[in-house]
Amino acid sequence: METNVQSIIPLIADTIKSKDKTRLLEVLDELQPYDRAEIYRSLPGKFRLPFVLLLPLPDVAIIVQELEHAYQEEIISVLGLEKASRMMAYMENDDLADLLSGLSMDRTQGFLTSMNQSESESVQSLLQYEPDTAGGIMTNRFVWIKDHYDVREAVDKVKSFANYAENIYYLYVLDDDKHLVGVVSYRDLVLADERDKISDIMYRRVISVPVDMDQEEVARTMERYDFIALPVVDGDNRLAGIVTVDDILDVVMEEANEDIGKLSATGKGIDFQTSAVQASAKRLPWLVLLLFLGLLSGSIMAGFQHTLEQVVALTFFMPMIAGMTGNTGTQSLAIVVRGLVTNDIDRKTLLRLISREFAVGLIIGVVCGLAVAGISYLWQGSGYLGFVVGLSLFLTLLIGTMTGTLIPLMLHRFRIDPAVASGPLITTLNDLFSLSVYFGLATMFLSKLS
Amino acid sequence: METNVQSIIPLIADTIKSKDKTRLLEVLDELQPYDRAEIYRSLPGKFRLPFVLLLPLPDVAIIVQELEHAYQEEIISVLGLEKASRMMAYMENDDLADLLSGLSMDRTQGFLTSMNQSESESVQSLLQYEPDTAGGIMTNRFVWIKDHYDVREAVDKVKSFANYAENIYYLYVLDDDKHLVGVVSYRDLVLADERDKISDIMYRRVISVPVDMDQEEVARTMERYDFIALPVVDGDNRLAGIVTVDDILDVVMEEANEDIGKLSATGKGIDFQTSAVQASAKRLPWLVLLLFLGLLSGSIMAGFQHTLEQVVALTFFMPMIAGMTGNTGTQSLAIVVRGLVTNDIDRKTLLRLISREFAVGLIIGVVCGLAVAGISYLWQGSGYLGFVVGLSLFLTLLIGTMTGTLIPLMLHRFRIDPAVASGPLITTLNDLFSLSVYFGLATMFLSKLS
Repeated sequence: METNVQSIIPLIADTIKSKDKTRLLEVLDELQPYDRAEIYRSLPGKFRLPFVLLLPLPDVAIIVQELEHAYQEEIISVLGLEKASRMMAYMENDDLADLLSGLSMDRTQGFLTSMNQSESESVQSLLQYEPDTAGGIMTNRFVWIKDHYDVREAVDKVKSFANYAENIYYLYVLDDDKHLVGVVSYRDLVLADERDKISDIMYRRVISVPVDMDQEEVARTMERYDFIALPVVDGDNRLAGIVTVDDILDVVMEEANEDIGKLSATGKGIDFQTSAVQASAKRLPWLVLLLFLGLLSGSIMAGFQHTLEQVVALTFFMPMIAGMTGNTGTQSLAIVVRGLVTNDIDRKTLLRLISREFAVGLIIGVVCGLAVAGISYLWQGSGYLGFVVGLSLFLTLLIGTMTGTLIPLMLHRFRIDPAVASGPLITTLNDLFSLSVYFGLATMFLSKLS
Repeated sequence: METNVQSIIPLIADTIKSKDKTRLLEVLDELQPYDRAEIYRSLPGKFRLPFVLLLPLPDVAIIVQELEHAYQEEIISVLGLEKASRMMAYMENDDLADLLSGLSMDRTQGFLTSMNQSESESVQSLLQYEPDTAGGIMTNRFVWIKDHYDVREAVDKVKSFANYAENIYYLYVLDDDKHLVGVVSYRDLVLADERDKISDIMYRRVISVPVDMDQEEVARTMERYDFIALPVVDGDNRLAGIVTVDDILDVVMEEANEDIGKLSATGKGIDFQTSAVQASAKRLPWLVLLLFLGLLSGSIMAGFQHTLEQVVALTFFMPMIAGMTGNTGTQSLAIVVRGLVTNDIDRKTLLRLISREFAVGLIIGVVCGLAVAGISYLWQGSGYLGFVVGLSLFLTLLIGTMTGTLIPLMLHRFRIDPAVASGPLITTLNDLFSLSVYFGLATMFLSKLS
């Protein structure tokens, strides 16, 4: 059963009011880190400061690790530089590196200098990696053993580092030059005999990832092999850290949200907590760009003013043609963007995908084109109008499908931030194409239409 | 390092041609399950049948577990009922249940009857759960221990079931009535003394999920608590199975793809492998619906034919107004759909979200409305036109933002399949609203415009 945090908030508030530290710790001790953080979030503002100050620093560290950046800053300010530095010593290094990388250079330096040297070096070595890479999400608190150990020595080492390493499920085996040469699971240890050599029971073909691998690819590797931790190595195959599956779960969620932001041109990082002004500021740049593109569509129509004045009925089919072209483009875009997450793209896959989407464009173009030609003939009573509308829809659906496929693929190829290939952008571009085709064709057949 | 499967395909093909089973198994033995499956996928068609027939059944089972349904069916046909049943005995029960639930009733029955009774019962008990629930994704091969065991007895039990249970990292502790009363990790076992009582070292506040919990909620629970396995219990808190994190990774990917399909009205399950005809068949129903809605927009315009004939310039702003309304609606939709994945929705969250989006609509409405009023005045030289266009854009942006927010929330509230709230549908609905507002306003001010 999940803990209902809301129901114990009054109890927590009572212990804070009466400064009953013992009782407070008793209650917290029974809770998972996520729930403790949820208590911090749910406490009325005036209780938060005394709450943090009542807790021992290791307990504060557990809560800080689970909180969003804004809350973390709040707690750091309450603690002050000296206490905050001591609190940081209890945090997992990867969480700490994330926290620091969100602060100003000055403040980061301040914290780093007030830590003890080995801690500070360990965190600095994590700070050097790009946040979206294996190095950026790994922890460098892990337990390694030497290949010449026997099982007993390995267990002893694990026991002495029990409180140090986060979620250890695998032990990594290093040779004397610190090269990664094997992996042993906890389960292997339990099942093995005390005197067995690690080098005899370890698995040698270790799957590892380089420090600079993109986090999305790390996630894909972990998903494929069903691992719960992956070793991260430097260029010389020396173990630099490990990425654990709980971090990967977060990555997968984050990347999915990014893809969705991409498709909807929402901009990054708007969630239910974002304020209206911030959310507007993130959404407006895209909207203003799209506004000008929309006006560009209008100016194309202005070029066909003569045609429009002659046959006003032409405008009645405009929303349908522009809309449909945008819709099919969005569909193709979604398939490509999401496919890029799970597929390795080689030349063969690429050609097959493009020709598949071209065929899809043909099929839906023919079906919808014929349908709409019939409908417009019945509605407006002109065979020529039906022909122009149907042919336009056929062509624009084909164009829309291809833009939705090719633009994201090209951006991916040239490693341009694919956020540019947003759904609304493709929709708006397709507006331009479809109106040009439609009014172009109509102008060609103007004498038959008016 | 990852194995490059492509590079060893020729070697594999050679061993198959020369029927060199020993060499083939040597090569496979070094590979992870995912890579073995990748070999099957990459082998030229004529090698697949002999490849499967060369392998011992436990090795076939490993490959089958990793493959997509179509490939699984292929292998089952090659093996025939009798051999396939024996192969299935080597599969993990949850993978097997998934495989069987994709076959016809008749064939499933055939396989179930040719299995041994305990295996068949175990699989049947999994088949009774909905595929999208905790019960549907759990495995019922897990290791449990009694609360009165000591550590030594627990280790002995683990040793005797070592080859039975999939990825065990936690041991679940049951009382004599099979109620779940605690959990112990492998690590706890390694660190404890042989004579310690399990009931003394176990963690008692176990977080578990009910069998009928939606898989999306199971994923959320696992993500929050950073677990790598979650126990699944029936109504009496009796342990029914466990869900492991690798299955949850798949769920998270799947749900993200569903959300994206939703936003783009693509329909379920189109990937890079889907044929053009199938992909078209899945996309067409939505497109045809949207086509009719597009024509409905056109018929609204037809109602304003008189206005349009008087002021053709009105049409030039149509693509911009309709497009912008659609864009802001898609943005809001994306924020809501994705937010529903990570947030628990209570009344307070709901009201805050709706008023936030209303404020966003106001802000972007004012900014874009003023901008476009100025531009259209400069372009067409009419202050009244500028006023009508600007006011229309303001109103339609507000409407668009609210439709994009309220429609998915209402569908969520009434538990209607939110696939209905697809992005293109909202865009097309917004077309209807925006054109009505725009031409309605224009008609009111017609005397000033023409």
